[in-house]
Amino acid sequence: MGISIAVDAMGGDHGPPVIVVASIQFLEETPDASVILVGREGDIRKALSSVRSIAADRVSVRAATEVVEMHEGPASALRGKKDSSMRVAVNLVKDGSAQACVSAGNTGALMAISRFVLKTLPGIDRPAIASQLPTRKGATTALDLGANVNCTAEQLVQFAVMGSALVAAVDGIERPTVGLLNIGEEDIKGNDLVKETAELLKASDLNFYGNVEGDDIYKGTTDVIVCDGFVGNVALKTSEGLALMLADFLREEFTRNPMRKLLGLFALPVLAAFKRRVDPRRYNGATLIGLKGVVVKSHGHADALAFRYALKKAYTEVAHGVLERIAQRLAAMPVPVVAPSLESSNDA
Amino acid sequence: MGISIAVDAMGGDHGPPVIVVASIQFLEETPDASVILVGREGDIRKALSSVRSIAADRVSVRAATEVVEMHEGPASALRGKKDSSMRVAVNLVKDGSAQACVSAGNTGALMAISRFVLKTLPGIDRPAIASQLPTRKGATTALDLGANVNCTAEQLVQFAVMGSALVAAVDGIERPTVGLLNIGEEDIKGNDLVKETAELLKASDLNFYGNVEGDDIYKGTTDVIVCDGFVGNVALKTSEGLALMLADFLREEFTRNPMRKLLGLFALPVLAAFKRRVDPRRYNGATLIGLKGVVVKSHGHADALAFRYALKKAYTEVAHGVLERIAQRLAAMPVPVVAPSLESSNDA
Repeated sequence: MGISIAVDAMGGDHGPPVIVVASIQFLEETPDASVILVGREGDIRKALSSVRSIAADRVSVRAATEVVEMHEGPASALRGKKDSSMRVAVNLVKDGSAQACVSAGNTGALMAISRFVLKTLPGIDRPAIASQLPTRKGATTALDLGANVNCTAEQLVQFAVMGSALVAAVDGIERPTVGLLNIGEEDIKGNDLVKETAELLKASDLNFYGNVEGDDIYKGTTDVIVCDGFVGNVALKTSEGLALMLADFLREEFTRNPMRKLLGLFALPVLAAFKRRVDPRRYNGATLIGLKGVVVKSHGHADALAFRYALKKAYTEVAHGVLERIAQRLAAMPVPVVAPSLESSNDA
Repeated sequence: MGISIAVDAMGGDHGPPVIVVASIQFLEETPDASVILVGREGDIRKALSSVRSIAADRVSVRAATEVVEMHEGPASALRGKKDSSMRVAVNLVKDGSAQACVSAGNTGALMAISRFVLKTLPGIDRPAIASQLPTRKGATTALDLGANVNCTAEQLVQFAVMGSALVAAVDGIERPTVGLLNIGEEDIKGNDLVKETAELLKASDLNFYGNVEGDDIYKGTTDVIVCDGFVGNVALKTSEGLALMLADFLREEFTRNPMRKLLGLFALPVLAAFKRRVDPRRYNGATLIGLKGVVVKSHGHADALAFRYALKKAYTEVAHGVLERIAQRLAAMPVPVVAPSLESSNDA
């Protein structure tokens, strides 16, 4: 049967031309996958007409008349645009026509629509945004990266459970280590939320490493890093900003005068190898985790290579049964996900 | 008279040998400054005996028998070690023997001792840690970077006032722009703390730019960036971790084989120029701001160059009257620093 992926063809900065190319390339390297392109039929057909590939047999088109704008409010997208490409793509997951959905559109709208249409898994209050980041040792999976700005300790524990299941399924690590993002390794440090979460994680059956600091993300200290969406989003965006600045500075230094430009020319393979190692396109595709369905958010700026990675991510999660893994882990949790303070009040 | 700086000679990873060299170099380039080295007299004299400089005339030694350990708790350092080099250095600021204090020791202990000995400025609840970060446009001053993990909106406004005064005094920018670190530019985004703070900042006479995101730090969008100490510390440490990883990857790529090593040799001046632009040593020295005295915290790993920058920072802040500037700004605040919700309850 293979795995079918519903793709919001209208999302992101580039729309159908880039998304169609990415989809075809993805299908060429993934023989048991198929793609349903959702959006304005004319635009999609036009983009499809310019590609020649036998993989095009595995592409179908599903018309949707509306488009969610990048800066549109989630409520407006959810209530006002029931025939948006995003909404229809998520509906295809709900009705079983597709096993996963990928969109490069508005994150808030995608989260709101996915929650409304697919609902959360039993035991999960709120979905989170999880993504891989490159590290010295390989990669780490961090969550939440921006879906939830006011979290409870119980929710952070749920993020830890979901992140562990995701890494276990996709990366084949049986008991992934979980780090709690904090500002010091000692237990006494951190805010109230983090302290309470640390107690819950210690009592859980997760492979809890303990507190980690910002620099541990790139050291690759743990397989999973858990934080609230505010902190996670700041860390992610700060990293993006720093990486771009450093790349620009490096380019500037290698183009400052003709001699340096020549040197830069010789150094091009080295600089390219460096760039490839940390190329954010290879890490494109954040998982909206905790839903009854696989939904992957691509960066809005994604080019064909980047979008292809997002498609691969969605495919891999379905192929490895991530949803089932999370559900199993939640069911197997030996301690109820409640704060110790609440538990003790139950004793009375 | 000049400016006298009390230096905790025992703090940091390297102690007197590095701190003495940094102090002498600093004095050689700053003719109207003097330094009081505080710590174990034997160790300091020994380090001093190995340097030859006419600037050594402006060095005096003040004995202190105890040393605050890097991982010692603030309470233990404050109550248990009244003759620590750190405590004695801060005392010298309190009694007017020095106009500023610099330490590469334990941050928590330095903050606790400074608050206890020097007290906070009128109108300031809690001191913050402020530091400059390099940007595409030059530098931005961010605070709080880790002193306060649970902040109120009023405290964040105080950080904004202090950061503005610091930048106005030291960088000569009359009305520095202030950005509030958030996870989206729209007003509706962010957690409750940030939303409340934004309202207060809009009502203040500060040059409030609005919300900024993590990547705005390195874009140099605003002169000052305000956030709570948890978020600020995560952003700072994440940046450090990413920069170190990228530097290592770059080095690895330029040493992968003999050909690349040769290329790296030719590229050395370019790579050095690149490194110099973002050299964290040039940004060493975080200000413990909000105290009745200038206290600068150096990175614990600081070498002589880095520690010299921390000394320069302390000197510059005294020379530019940062404390007086902050006091003036606080006194001139046209609106009381209280949340609107509290104000309206006063109307009743």
